[in-house]
Amino acid sequence: MTREVPVVRGVPEASVERLPGYLRTLTVLQEQGTTLVSSEELAAAAGVGSAMLRKDLSHLGSTGVRGVGYDVERLASLLAESLGLTRDWPVAIVGMGKLGRALAAHAGLAARGLRVVALLDRDPAVVGEVVAGQVVRPMSDLPRLEGLAIGVIATPAGSAQDAADALIEAGVGSILNLAPAVLSVPEDVVVRSVDLASELQVLAFHEWRKATSVVLPLEVS
Amino acid sequence: MTREVPVVRGVPEASVERLPGYLRTLTVLQEQGTTLVSSEELAAAAGVGSAMLRKDLSHLGSTGVRGVGYDVERLASLLAESLGLTRDWPVAIVGMGKLGRALAAHAGLAARGLRVVALLDRDPAVVGEVVAGQVVRPMSDLPRLEGLAIGVIATPAGSAQDAADALIEAGVGSILNLAPAVLSVPEDVVVRSVDLASELQVLAFHEWRKATSVVLPLEVS
Repeated sequence: MTREVPVVRGVPEASVERLPGYLRTLTVLQEQGTTLVSSEELAAAAGVGSAMLRKDLSHLGSTGVRGVGYDVERLASLLAESLGLTRDWPVAIVGMGKLGRALAAHAGLAARGLRVVALLDRDPAVVGEVVAGQVVRPMSDLPRLEGLAIGVIATPAGSAQDAADALIEAGVGSILNLAPAVLSVPEDVVVRSVDLASELQVLAFHEWRKATSVVLPLEVS
Repeated sequence: MTREVPVVRGVPEASVERLPGYLRTLTVLQEQGTTLVSSEELAAAAGVGSAMLRKDLSHLGSTGVRGVGYDVERLASLLAESLGLTRDWPVAIVGMGKLGRALAAHAGLAARGLRVVALLDRDPAVVGEVVAGQVVRPMSDLPRLEGLAIGVIATPAGSAQDAADALIEAGVGSILNLAPAVLSVPEDVVVRSVDLASELQVLAFHEWRKATSVVLPLEVS
């Protein structure tokens, strides 16, 4: 069996965003003892079309075998390696509100190569508390943390930019922004923003659209 | 001043996803006392290009006034109305783990028309606990809740589909899925999925790509 070399560059962002879902689905299949899967089965389980799945995977150099499908274990390894999850990505979480604490306690991160190495808060009343087995540090500790790769901002909107500046100063190259704020960062820093309230607003829009697309008769009689 | 009638149908999904961000930005501008804003200023504050902003807003029937810009208050009202946020959208959250509790305690939801009316869990040990001022109910209470619009699934992956089925049975039309699982739902039910671990994996991919795109010289001397 030749080793497939992951092509990590030149993969469209939309494809990248679907890769973790494929890996998650393959992990479930592995746990169920499945060794081979067709692109149709894998696509259905991952909730995408099979043509899209095949295209996404072809970016990684994997095309499967016609009539046989994908080797589950081999494809899972390829995905994990392509996503860089066989390496260690030290994560710092800033903001020990409920959302920051929920993420700090997330059991699934370490298994996916994401090691939470520091929890920080600017509130002296929170610093020193133990959260998910770690002592919360003051923001002034950030410059002393070495090898940080990813920062999570779980602060209120008003402190998000300060948190981003401090993380970037400390060497973080990618930020997951959970605060409802737009961050201004250097070009080489990648930011992904998730605002749960905005997600709910988009759903409210859909409910509203469904409600108003029912054309009611002007007269009922 | 003529009243702009929101066009809620036929707005591209990508535009819909940006509307909450514009509204959030306008709310900040309102708080700062700004009454007029140019499309360039608003776009910069919202972190998008100004051409995209103008296009998005034109779907709602708002084009601004050349050389003057947008009336902040009027545009905020139009956005809120277009998003259906002037109505009341009852939300039920299933799964009282840390993430479900964080969302239940989210202060900003009610202000945006999103009223959390029920917290549910299938674990009898959690039912009856008070979370964010509400008593956690058993799943068997779901059919008794009337007028539910939006459901949030914050359960482990293994119970996410059961939660979705129960929410849909109870009349929920839109679901925010925070569990790392693919849901199977009827066509008229809208699902948005947010998996924070996957978000971090996408960032790990970017860090990995950055690391491997640095071509090191073979000889240093």
